[in-house]
Amino acid sequence: MNPMKTIHTITELKNELRNARKQGSSIGFVPTMGYLHEGHLNLVRECKKENDFTIASIFVNPVQFAPHEDFDSYPRDMERDSRLLSDLGVDILFNPSREEIYPSGYMTYVEVENLGKVLCGKSRGTHFRGVTTIVLKLLNIVSPDQAYFGRKDAQQAIIIKKMCRDLNLDVSIRTIPIARDTDGLALSSRNVYLSKEERASALFMPRALQLARSKMEDGLHDAAAVKELIRSEISKTQLIKIDYVEVVSLDLLEEVSTVDPRNTLVAAAIWAGKTRLIDNFILGEI
Amino acid sequence: MNPMKTIHTITELKNELRNARKQGSSIGFVPTMGYLHEGHLNLVRECKKENDFTIASIFVNPVQFAPHEDFDSYPRDMERDSRLLSDLGVDILFNPSREEIYPSGYMTYVEVENLGKVLCGKSRGTHFRGVTTIVLKLLNIVSPDQAYFGRKDAQQAIIIKKMCRDLNLDVSIRTIPIARDTDGLALSSRNVYLSKEERASALFMPRALQLARSKMEDGLHDAAAVKELIRSEISKTQLIKIDYVEVVSLDLLEEVSTVDPRNTLVAAAIWAGKTRLIDNFILGEI
Repeated sequence: MNPMKTIHTITELKNELRNARKQGSSIGFVPTMGYLHEGHLNLVRECKKENDFTIASIFVNPVQFAPHEDFDSYPRDMERDSRLLSDLGVDILFNPSREEIYPSGYMTYVEVENLGKVLCGKSRGTHFRGVTTIVLKLLNIVSPDQAYFGRKDAQQAIIIKKMCRDLNLDVSIRTIPIARDTDGLALSSRNVYLSKEERASALFMPRALQLARSKMEDGLHDAAAVKELIRSEISKTQLIKIDYVEVVSLDLLEEVSTVDPRNTLVAAAIWAGKTRLIDNFILGEI
Repeated sequence: MNPMKTIHTITELKNELRNARKQGSSIGFVPTMGYLHEGHLNLVRECKKENDFTIASIFVNPVQFAPHEDFDSYPRDMERDSRLLSDLGVDILFNPSREEIYPSGYMTYVEVENLGKVLCGKSRGTHFRGVTTIVLKLLNIVSPDQAYFGRKDAQQAIIIKKMCRDLNLDVSIRTIPIARDTDGLALSSRNVYLSKEERASALFMPRALQLARSKMEDGLHDAAAVKELIRSEISKTQLIKIDYVEVVSLDLLEEVSTVDPRNTLVAAAIWAGKTRLIDNFILGEI
């Protein structure tokens, strides 16, 4: 196995990839914002399994953060990330500068219009426009056969799939189940922000979702009742502010009144202190 | 020389192109809305000269027309267009249906923000968003080495170049000088709308631009004076309504007060009856 190469420029990356492609290698891509957890590492493992050549990227994408959000304080640890990716046998780590990705005068943005305005898009108006723009750019730079995204960010995965289909990109978008800590909290780079008390309270979200899921398996199909159940379970702690609890169709992210067991996303977002956390479960396939 | 193939579906086109690419052919692409004139044919000739394999597309793109604009009446003549392209030795004519390009539920759009809001973008608010979206889709479908655009639509060419650079596309965008009729009118598919009187009046635009250009070569560098000269020349006919006359930088399309002889676009748009016509000249390189 060759040692992992860390590359910072687009030109150098394209050269490396041309060589890999010439050798007929299938190319898999795992884009991340770094500060890696088991969820990210699962994406890498799946990518390694399914492709000859694996690229991971680490780039904290400024245009998906609103001015008041946590771009500056978003956790970063390149040294640890680099070691983790190298240990998993990643071939290339792409770690561009902000100027390399958004040079002075940058002004082109892509938007999946309807899907980006609901759920997390309601409180984060330009977030998904930032996500689709960076993902399109990275896909154009890397031209992977397959790209990997986690299902914790279900809305993101659905939007990216839709963008790729609408824009006639050849890449196959693969999604990987949510990785959870032993206490049930969905892994997130932002979990590091939580105090002990906030973390204990945040656990009411996965517990509420788990309860709703089992009730739905027992026959609860009324979406309003599902939402009410989740809201009331989360509200048992005073420390959490609910951003949203939604039951929507998996393909169009449209509110539904009755749960379709093959096309439903149940998603929630909460504030634990200053930290915004999301979680979900899906019935069907992204 | 193989006879030209006419292809209507994306899948079939991608298969054909895979074969061409396997043989190491360089691929050139000329996207059009049909009703071809010498300007389009010049693009095709240049494309043939510079590439092993030439694809032309004909698709009247609905999303670049506003509801009140001329999408329905836009002139079409597939039979003649097809013969002209075949005679020039085009390898593939791609002529997709509206449903093939924008299937039901389509919702992804790309925008080059600043450049699309000035000049023609002022009176045609979503026009360039429609142009960049279709061009990005077609470039993703065709993956050409080079794509060809006319300089009559200078703003369009500048925006497309910027989009490709911003989104890290590998294609090289080539632009070709304006083709003119013997009377000096820039060729446009929309010229067919003009009555004899409207056409005679429309000629005041190229004449005014030509006069301004020669005055600029003689030392006129004050942008306000250039605009005033063009406006007053066009206003010598009563039949024309001026949409805009602008002197802007070629790279950023920003209004300038003094003409830079290596970075200036002088552009005008007029209404001759119900027909909107544009023309321009550039100092510098697109």
